[in-house]
Amino acid sequence: MKRIEKDFEVINLITEKGLGINRLSYTKYERKAINYIKEECVKADMSVKIDNCGNLIARREGIDSKTSAVATGSHLDTVYEGGKYDGTVGVLAGIEAIRNLKDKNIRTKRPIELIVFACEESSRFGISTLGSKAMTGKVNFDKIRNIKDKDDITIEEAYQKIGLDINKTKNCIREKDSIKSFLELHIEQSPYLERDELDVGIVTGISAPTRFNVKIKGLAEHSGSTRMFERQDALVGASKIVLAVKKFAEEESKNSTVGTVGTLRVKPGAINVIPGYTELKIDIRGIIKESIDRVCDNIIKYFGTLEEELKLVVNWEIISNEMPILTDKTIQNTLEKNSKKLGLKYTYMNSGAGHDAMNMAKIWPTGMIFIPSKKGISHNPKEFTDLSYIKKGARLLEETLVELANF
Amino acid sequence: MKRIEKDFEVINLITEKGLGINRLSYTKYERKAINYIKEECVKADMSVKIDNCGNLIARREGIDSKTSAVATGSHLDTVYEGGKYDGTVGVLAGIEAIRNLKDKNIRTKRPIELIVFACEESSRFGISTLGSKAMTGKVNFDKIRNIKDKDDITIEEAYQKIGLDINKTKNCIREKDSIKSFLELHIEQSPYLERDELDVGIVTGISAPTRFNVKIKGLAEHSGSTRMFERQDALVGASKIVLAVKKFAEEESKNSTVGTVGTLRVKPGAINVIPGYTELKIDIRGIIKESIDRVCDNIIKYFGTLEEELKLVVNWEIISNEMPILTDKTIQNTLEKNSKKLGLKYTYMNSGAGHDAMNMAKIWPTGMIFIPSKKGISHNPKEFTDLSYIKKGARLLEETLVELANF
Repeated sequence: MKRIEKDFEVINLITEKGLGINRLSYTKYERKAINYIKEECVKADMSVKIDNCGNLIARREGIDSKTSAVATGSHLDTVYEGGKYDGTVGVLAGIEAIRNLKDKNIRTKRPIELIVFACEESSRFGISTLGSKAMTGKVNFDKIRNIKDKDDITIEEAYQKIGLDINKTKNCIREKDSIKSFLELHIEQSPYLERDELDVGIVTGISAPTRFNVKIKGLAEHSGSTRMFERQDALVGASKIVLAVKKFAEEESKNSTVGTVGTLRVKPGAINVIPGYTELKIDIRGIIKESIDRVCDNIIKYFGTLEEELKLVVNWEIISNEMPILTDKTIQNTLEKNSKKLGLKYTYMNSGAGHDAMNMAKIWPTGMIFIPSKKGISHNPKEFTDLSYIKKGARLLEETLVELANF
Repeated sequence: MKRIEKDFEVINLITEKGLGINRLSYTKYERKAINYIKEECVKADMSVKIDNCGNLIARREGIDSKTSAVATGSHLDTVYEGGKYDGTVGVLAGIEAIRNLKDKNIRTKRPIELIVFACEESSRFGISTLGSKAMTGKVNFDKIRNIKDKDDITIEEAYQKIGLDINKTKNCIREKDSIKSFLELHIEQSPYLERDELDVGIVTGISAPTRFNVKIKGLAEHSGSTRMFERQDALVGASKIVLAVKKFAEEESKNSTVGTVGTLRVKPGAINVIPGYTELKIDIRGIIKESIDRVCDNIIKYFGTLEEELKLVVNWEIISNEMPILTDKTIQNTLEKNSKKLGLKYTYMNSGAGHDAMNMAKIWPTGMIFIPSKKGISHNPKEFTDLSYIKKGARLLEETLVELANF
């Protein structure tokens, strides 16, 4: 199985200079990596095409070429200063699985597709999973064509530069009956598989964030001459929100809902001035929408309590409110059965991060395989997954693709 | 009493261009303002000199010229974009009181001095009340001569530019028996006198800050994929410290001790990343050292609790630990008696901010008079005190100077 080592090496040499891997979406680097996989697919006797959003769709015909295909895939773009594994391992496991079928002369009933989605990371244009959103009809290109990257290049211009026509992106939407089911392999991006010494995680749901932007207005006064009970301290308010978010999320921990305040700014920010203003962002995630909503409702109620208790003005808005998705039960069962068959130590788990599978799941029965990532470090040059896990995951992917494609 | 209006107008025309008043220490602007007062003192038959630290010492002889003097004074330098009242009103009330004595032909037993302290604000060189520290022997000029302002001008160079010799600053130290007592009038810089519709505050103590710098190390992980009970959230730690500082200070509110977290930085500061690092500064102030120490002890103990509870590493250091001072009881009583005599509505109160009186009080019996400042706004172009309060304060100052100088 030397092929996958070579793929891994070749792809991770394709990067802009800098720390870690810099293979941003719709750059010549992402294109070059996709083209490498395209060539590998041709060698594996697959038909290939790049759609108008830059997604690679490679197809291995089945016995019945008219029936819907079983698809797998992931992405090859990275964040700035990213790692070698996020996205890439899912693509490599896919091509490896298909090459194995070729080697073993296995022809499935249904066609099998390998999809390399364009622009999964939001780093360049602030939009994540753009390729899979386009494929599932979830994006209005007229609304986003003028969004610029940090070098003032619009999405439309970025498309032009690599020969894509943004006016033809409607063609990217796949017919519902062209795909039977979708399966993505990805690194876990959490430390749990590694910690529990497991080989794979069978993903039961992909959480979606509900996000708040919160602005708290108090009164900036002298820290020495203002009595404790007279204060309108916006940082005291923010601190109470941080702890309330923690408490409300912990109350929903049986549903795996989590809550985080990741950003907090304090003004004026001087040691001798009571903070008169703070601004923070809250991120609530889970796979059960009702549980997310309970946490959000509690937080909103708490804003009111806080205004009265601390004489603050709390302005808040919900800046994101996505639906979590659940993966397909039948695919979950198939993954479990095949894990046992291959002697892989597995567990069921959720995905806290978003993936292309999230969009695909809204249209087609979808499954996801996680493989361990060292210490859960991700979006970072230190990202690491031992090759043995990639190979184990690829085997589980292969077994499961074959089973789904013969059904 | 048109004189004081004119003084006020002339002095506040002396400012570098910009928002509000910019009369930084040891600039030609501070010098010009001091020279204006010097001329007014000469007109009031006072002898004048500028010491080697740039302090103006103007003296009205008493009947017994060999006895120790009663001194009053404040400063004329401002912060960047400061107001018209902080410091200035104390100097104006002083010169006005002395001119009144001249008009009324009152000659006191002791001499009366008006001191305009140089460099009260820390804005230029990061050192506050430098003039009064020099006068009380509390500064080692060899340690500070190379400190630079934002234009890279050292204190030594700033001295040279205005004709002061930093090597002769030891001469500024006043003999203990050259001064009998010191009295400073200042704006309150808090809203309490205005709110309670009072004319003057008799200051009982000037609080001093004990300050902490705190660095909290947690673990930056994905906000979606890290379970609540597995987190090492440095912002949760910081929030608990903010609320603990509030609680411990409130427990000491009977002693007027206050506690504030005025700055807080969060890293990496992304909505989808659990904060892995925070840094904050704590400011504890009061006029009773034992009370300040109890708050500090509680905070230090709490750091330990926090490390265990949240699996964080808390590194802290005390970056400032000054002694609060109490004003002289006899002077307090005299101020109360004279307030009643003049029909002024008064209260006893502490000063949360530092003043030149703080240094003077370490050597000589000292008193302080506060006059209202609108909404407590200070160090700001919006600083405002109605002239009627300046005049009332000046009258109280005059009465009290006479009484102390005849004792």
